[in-house]
Amino acid sequence: MAYFENVNEIKYEGPKSSNPLAFKYYNPDEVVGGNRMEDIFRFSVAYWHTFTMDGSDPFGHGNMIRPWDKYTGMDLAKARVEAAFEFFEKLNIPYFCFHDVDIAPEGSNLRETYKNLDEIVAMIKEYMKTSKTKLLWNTANLFSHPRYVHGAATAVNADVFAYAAAKVKKGLEIAKELGAENYVFWGGREGYETLLNTDMKLELDNLGRFLHLAVDYAKEIGFSGQFLIEPKPKEPTKHQYDFDVATALAFLQNYGLKDYFKFNIEANHATLAGHTFEHELRVARINGMLGSVDANQGDPLLGWDTDEFPTDLYSTTLAMYEILQNGGLGKGGLNFDAKVRRGSFEPEDLFYAHIAGMDSFAIGLKVAKRLIDDRVLESFIEERYSSYHYGIGKDIVEGKVDFHKLEEYALQLGDIQNSSGRTERLKSTINQYLLSVLSE
Amino acid sequence: MAYFENVNEIKYEGPKSSNPLAFKYYNPDEVVGGNRMEDIFRFSVAYWHTFTMDGSDPFGHGNMIRPWDKYTGMDLAKARVEAAFEFFEKLNIPYFCFHDVDIAPEGSNLRETYKNLDEIVAMIKEYMKTSKTKLLWNTANLFSHPRYVHGAATAVNADVFAYAAAKVKKGLEIAKELGAENYVFWGGREGYETLLNTDMKLELDNLGRFLHLAVDYAKEIGFSGQFLIEPKPKEPTKHQYDFDVATALAFLQNYGLKDYFKFNIEANHATLAGHTFEHELRVARINGMLGSVDANQGDPLLGWDTDEFPTDLYSTTLAMYEILQNGGLGKGGLNFDAKVRRGSFEPEDLFYAHIAGMDSFAIGLKVAKRLIDDRVLESFIEERYSSYHYGIGKDIVEGKVDFHKLEEYALQLGDIQNSSGRTERLKSTINQYLLSVLSE
Amino acid sequence: MAYFENVNEIKYEGPKSSNPLAFKYYNPDEVVGGNRMEDIFRFSVAYWHTFTMDGSDPFGHGNMIRPWDKYTGMDLAKARVEAAFEFFEKLNIPYFCFHDVDIAPEGSNLRETYKNLDEIVAMIKEYMKTSKTKLLWNTANLFSHPRYVHGAATAVNADVFAYAAAKVKKGLEIAKELGAENYVFWGGREGYETLLNTDMKLELDNLGRFLHLAVDYAKEIGFSGQFLIEPKPKEPTKHQYDFDVATALAFLQNYGLKDYFKFNIEANHATLAGHTFEHELRVARINGMLGSVDANQGDPLLGWDTDEFPTDLYSTTLAMYEILQNGGLGKGGLNFDAKVRRGSFEPEDLFYAHIAGMDSFAIGLKVAKRLIDDRVLESFIEERYSSYHYGIGKDIVEGKVDFHKLEEYALQLGDIQNSSGRTERLKSTINQYLLSVLSE
Amino acid sequence: MAYFENVNEIKYEGPKSSNPLAFKYYNPDEVVGGNRMEDIFRFSVAYWHTFTMDGSDPFGHGNMIRPWDKYTGMDLAKARVEAAFEFFEKLNIPYFCFHDVDIAPEGSNLRETYKNLDEIVAMIKEYMKTSKTKLLWNTANLFSHPRYVHGAATAVNADVFAYAAAKVKKGLEIAKELGAENYVFWGGREGYETLLNTDMKLELDNLGRFLHLAVDYAKEIGFSGQFLIEPKPKEPTKHQYDFDVATALAFLQNYGLKDYFKFNIEANHATLAGHTFEHELRVARINGMLGSVDANQGDPLLGWDTDEFPTDLYSTTLAMYEILQNGGLGKGGLNFDAKVRRGSFEPEDLFYAHIAGMDSFAIGLKVAKRLIDDRVLESFIEERYSSYHYGIGKDIVEGKVDFHKLEEYALQLGDIQNSSGRTERLKSTINQYLLSVLSE
Ligand SMILES: [Co+2]
Ligand SMILES: [Co+2]
Ligand SMILES: [Co+2]
Ligand SMILES: [Co+2]
Ligand SMILES: [Co+2]
Ligand SMILES: [Co+2]
Ligand SMILES: [Co+2]
Ligand SMILES: [Co+2]
Repeated sequence: MAYFENVNEIKYEGPKSSNPLAFKYYNPDEVVGGNRMEDIFRFSVAYWHTFTMDGSDPFGHGNMIRPWDKYTGMDLAKARVEAAFEFFEKLNIPYFCFHDVDIAPEGSNLRETYKNLDEIVAMIKEYMKTSKTKLLWNTANLFSHPRYVHGAATAVNADVFAYAAAKVKKGLEIAKELGAENYVFWGGREGYETLLNTDMKLELDNLGRFLHLAVDYAKEIGFSGQFLIEPKPKEPTKHQYDFDVATALAFLQNYGLKDYFKFNIEANHATLAGHTFEHELRVARINGMLGSVDANQGDPLLGWDTDEFPTDLYSTTLAMYEILQNGGLGKGGLNFDAKVRRGSFEPEDLFYAHIAGMDSFAIGLKVAKRLIDDRVLESFIEERYSSYHYGIGKDIVEGKVDFHKLEEYALQLGDIQNSSGRTERLKSTINQYLLSVLSE
Repeated sequence: MAYFENVNEIKYEGPKSSNPLAFKYYNPDEVVGGNRMEDIFRFSVAYWHTFTMDGSDPFGHGNMIRPWDKYTGMDLAKARVEAAFEFFEKLNIPYFCFHDVDIAPEGSNLRETYKNLDEIVAMIKEYMKTSKTKLLWNTANLFSHPRYVHGAATAVNADVFAYAAAKVKKGLEIAKELGAENYVFWGGREGYETLLNTDMKLELDNLGRFLHLAVDYAKEIGFSGQFLIEPKPKEPTKHQYDFDVATALAFLQNYGLKDYFKFNIEANHATLAGHTFEHELRVARINGMLGSVDANQGDPLLGWDTDEFPTDLYSTTLAMYEILQNGGLGKGGLNFDAKVRRGSFEPEDLFYAHIAGMDSFAIGLKVAKRLIDDRVLESFIEERYSSYHYGIGKDIVEGKVDFHKLEEYALQLGDIQNSSGRTERLKSTINQYLLSVLSE
Repeated sequence: MAYFENVNEIKYEGPKSSNPLAFKYYNPDEVVGGNRMEDIFRFSVAYWHTFTMDGSDPFGHGNMIRPWDKYTGMDLAKARVEAAFEFFEKLNIPYFCFHDVDIAPEGSNLRETYKNLDEIVAMIKEYMKTSKTKLLWNTANLFSHPRYVHGAATAVNADVFAYAAAKVKKGLEIAKELGAENYVFWGGREGYETLLNTDMKLELDNLGRFLHLAVDYAKEIGFSGQFLIEPKPKEPTKHQYDFDVATALAFLQNYGLKDYFKFNIEANHATLAGHTFEHELRVARINGMLGSVDANQGDPLLGWDTDEFPTDLYSTTLAMYEILQNGGLGKGGLNFDAKVRRGSFEPEDLFYAHIAGMDSFAIGLKVAKRLIDDRVLESFIEERYSSYHYGIGKDIVEGKVDFHKLEEYALQLGDIQNSSGRTERLKSTINQYLLSVLSE
Repeated sequence: MAYFENVNEIKYEGPKSSNPLAFKYYNPDEVVGGNRMEDIFRFSVAYWHTFTMDGSDPFGHGNMIRPWDKYTGMDLAKARVEAAFEFFEKLNIPYFCFHDVDIAPEGSNLRETYKNLDEIVAMIKEYMKTSKTKLLWNTANLFSHPRYVHGAATAVNADVFAYAAAKVKKGLEIAKELGAENYVFWGGREGYETLLNTDMKLELDNLGRFLHLAVDYAKEIGFSGQFLIEPKPKEPTKHQYDFDVATALAFLQNYGLKDYFKFNIEANHATLAGHTFEHELRVARINGMLGSVDANQGDPLLGWDTDEFPTDLYSTTLAMYEILQNGGLGKGGLNFDAKVRRGSFEPEDLFYAHIAGMDSFAIGLKVAKRLIDDRVLESFIEERYSSYHYGIGKDIVEGKVDFHKLEEYALQLGDIQNSSGRTERLKSTINQYLLSVLSE
């Protein structure tokens, strides 16, 4: 049966189209810089926001109209798989992502949960045989169930640590079974509510232990996907240990885990941590740890994770700039960890929202590509730091100076001449590129 | 003499120009909706940020390269006037704005301050005879001098109230003398540091008294410019009484001042108050109190007033949407209460920055105009609220219901049918308009 | 049956007690300033957070251990009433508050919902006959059900307006039936998600109409409780129309409603709006509109409504200072709109949390009372503003000046002498009072 | 001559004193836990905020009444030294801190700047011979002068790097000369304004190089003070590289610098980064890197560095708790990087403010000490994490498990039993301790 009867396959119709159910800018087969758009973006649908999320918020009940919600239990789980692959096909999306609990209900005990998972995983695997859509990553939800109230890998209770380990073990097996290209760790409750009752050191040590065990098990079963940490500063916890890329990097270094992980960077998590999306991408990139992206956006005036579909073209342009400079995302992709607003509760909104996100990144890609091709920022930066290519600057970079030599140099300097950073002019140029690149 | 020797008059060269000292989108004589762009925007240069500001910040000394800074005292004041009118002419700007202390130094006493002002005002008046540039508004700086440490109209010290009144009296006389189209009140220190030492009621009463006296004096001298309140929530004070449009509206209503004032809305002040720029414009508009605009932008991740030049095209589009819906700004205009970044310290940056702002608003105007012409939002909204045009909705709007009638109606209702608000689709449409309107 | 078997009546045991199930500072019968503590505070338990809330958050399922949760439907509703009155008695609390949906489940249609409400209201009324606990206020939940997705009184759909009116009509009848001393309006979804699809003017007009209809109906049925508006700036909506006290005041003035309403001020809503709790209390107080208080606290580093039990003694002291200066809360009270942290999921935590809040306010009361008795702040403020009691200051306050007279006065002034505001010394004094008052 | 004629030596007079120029809680000779209070706190006066800062803010001119401001140039520098040591003596403070530019004006070239510094350093050294007050740390101001507009160690211009190196070289020599116990690096402009013009990788590499050169030079001259990094997330820059402790830790690890540095943690910088003060102290502590503290506080509702004197007793208690758990601060101390409010412009306010801060920390110390002595939090935490002391938990901690073993364990688990985290009860207990400890 069809769950989205009113929607046919979404096609590229170009910028002049007024068909809301068409791509205006995302053209999967169009080649940009030698690669097909589809292969550059590796877009992914987030199972939770698209098929599981019901629209409830802290002040409101579920309100999403989802044709599969007439079912319950395992029937619902199966209906969701059917709906998902229909959606994937109609959207022509190459990837999807899920938490274990998104695809199958928890059973009355762990063994039953496994059984439920096995059944749905088998069904998904069957669907994947005839679908183009592959698994970008999966993960274990270690935060929703009451047992995780005080954390999972950082739980105050060793039973919870063990339980969480079993869930990740299963998650890794599923990842291998379905050919996931990555496996994600987002520690929603790996943090604290108050320091008054928290042994931070033990919790972090345990988190380090947990991740080492996961690394070991992946090796054991031959899962070769990339491990990803997804930082977030807070919510639901008061403080989350993987606050941002830099914090998680310090943690990975402390615990000898740096070589086994990259980052899954979410735009809205970046802004909640006080950073721009592009900042987090840059920090990961220059550390060789940019793995994948949760493509969404927040509201800068709201203090929680709104997980909006990305439509801000400045953000998509600067994100694609970092991604192109990174040589792409490798095994990673752009996963829409984004949900339709509660007011957008009709099934069609799921399509409008994904189209909005995919078109916005397509625009960002083209603008970023042209900026790079024209070396707009590169030329400016090259000139700006040129003093490090000769003389004292070269000596500094090459480690040929000490404080004596630098002082000697400084003492003979007259007034130092700096040049303008030209922020306003550069921003103007970005606008000009934004408006002109797509109009050609 | 010329202070901006390297810069000639800024001309419109169109979107394909790569001349950084040219307008790409702002074309003063181009007609949009029956009006010349120049007449729609009524752009204004802020004297303080452009000719007086030195680049200092709480952690750094002044660093701006300003050729007139070789002078001091009244000579400096005069050099600034010369530089200003050269700048106005080269930028082809129709308006400017100033605080009293921007144009002339304070003297050793009030009388001497008056004398300094009189001399510079006469000089400005002379320049204005041959310049196209007019005075959008002036104001009295009642916050920088130590005497205003505890406020001006809301000072704890009656002497300060009197002194501030004298400054505003002079300001109104200058406004009349130079033909200012508005007079602005921004109460930088009309607020409090801590409630522990504050009589809020007396302070607000005094602010009400002060504004009534100003209204009376304007009438007396026949100054017919529009009085404007510029809200800001904080900085430099912990709490500023004119927190936002709604707060200032409550104040004006409380003190019988509503008929005499409109609002001067600054984008960065809006965001500091937790609102979007367009929210503040909308609230002012639907209350018939949208007077003028301080056109700038803030950084959503920084908690202070960064007063950046406006380059965000979403913001300029939505602002121009409100302004067009308001039937324009009347006596108001778009004043660039914006400063170049401290790193943009060369004189040319002043031009780049203003060009960036003017081009960004030109784009915003065209996109907003097309959105309105195509009734993109209007049609959607009309349909969305259509239930208030007939039946029970019409009765509600026309005051023909009471709770009995509404209950009776509600009791016979089946499940209520709502429709999606289509946020994502509308955002997509805005992007499509943004990219397409300018490419035609 | 008993739902809180492990807890006996909470008694006052004094500051040296280490019994966690005893009051250390709140002594209901102790007289402070001529009134019993219980009569000053008029503490209230919030039905929703204490008996209905299940601990779920946007990333987690319900986890609260509540002995009555073995029931469902109307049986659950009845069990909650039993548990509530047991809790009220053991806590010795004089008031409670509820939303309609807290006490009874919605039926399959409005008539059935009424029937459910009637049955539970009758049961509550019966319990109230033998209980000391009275109803501080009730309200209608017009935000949780999907029908309110786009607002209630400000809904885009007239059917929703009508339905909401019916719910408030019933709420007012219940208020009268149970002798509620107030009726509260918190418009959780009276606001907007995006201005792109919003007719703000029509929505505000409709909100004005709705409140007038409520005022009319209360008169009709002779409900003499106080109407209260509870401001909140955002969450769940992007922007809520009753942003803060000042905004709601402007609204009430605009729509001729000021005389019929006071404010119910919540601490956490104040901070979300960028204000201190005491600021909002002060603004309401000096406008004669301080009605009641939702006593809780937020986390200044988190951007959402955490609704924590109030334990910050600075906050309780400054709140009680405003309340005492207001001559008390009249018909209002201190309602604990506060929820135990998700990690505090045991039934006993409900007692610990309320004890924490009640003790914290008891401390705040005593410190505030002593500050007022000693005229610590009053003396300082009196001296600080003394210039308005004579000479030019007196003339200003008495309306005997104009700008001419003030200028004349200012021109003869020498350097103006200001005095320190002494913020640091005053804060020291508050600390000294905090530590000393209770140790006597 | 005396600069603070109206103030005599500040003595301890006890909690009942109403003398504003006396300590009520700070009693330097009182022994707490075996150590004199003075030796525990190692309080320090910040030269910049106390003797150099003039009260100016982005909207106001300098207004502080400072008797030494009648001098200029080197005379002013000398007068400040005199005033400083008078202040130190009257406050009985054991330490002070300074930036190079606080104590001596920059000359017209670097050599002259050195000369000015040498003269003042000699004068300070002379004063220190007869004063008890020692140098906690000094630093080089590498952010105020225009030459640092684009950074110092991370400057885009190699000349600036060299110049900054020379300043730090001199700073280290001064540190050695005056016996500084630490040397601080706060990189006010080591960050970026916009990524559009920034080579983040090169800038961070250069920062790493710079710090290595400083480490080398300290070794060379035998300076044995502790090197400290002071994190701050932003202001004046949009993004500062030493965002918070975790970020700086990642940086130090990346560049092989971890062994040579500890952290100087400022409360207001913590909150600007989205953390509590105690969080940053805890993170540094468990990494063995808690070096020293800039004792101040911010305003949670203001988005900039307000550098207020610390008076919040929750904050001082939790800070002292971390410091006591750390076994004290070693070579570090509590430096009042705090300024009197602009409204507190009289010289006496400097004393009131320091007294406020010192008393607040004295209270915090006593409360924290008693909490630790009574093992209030320790007992709770020990019990809370007790499952890691036996069985599977012990195996986890001892590295004796793998995912197989954990899964096997999890599969046989029934429902997992968690216990309440008791946040509310713990907060109540903190209040009880706060009120009771000092009243004994
Ligand atoms: Co995500
Ligand atoms: Co998110
Ligand atoms: Co402005
Ligand atoms: Co501004
Ligand atoms: Co509330
Ligand atoms: Co709340
Ligand atoms: Co500091
Ligand atoms: Co600071």
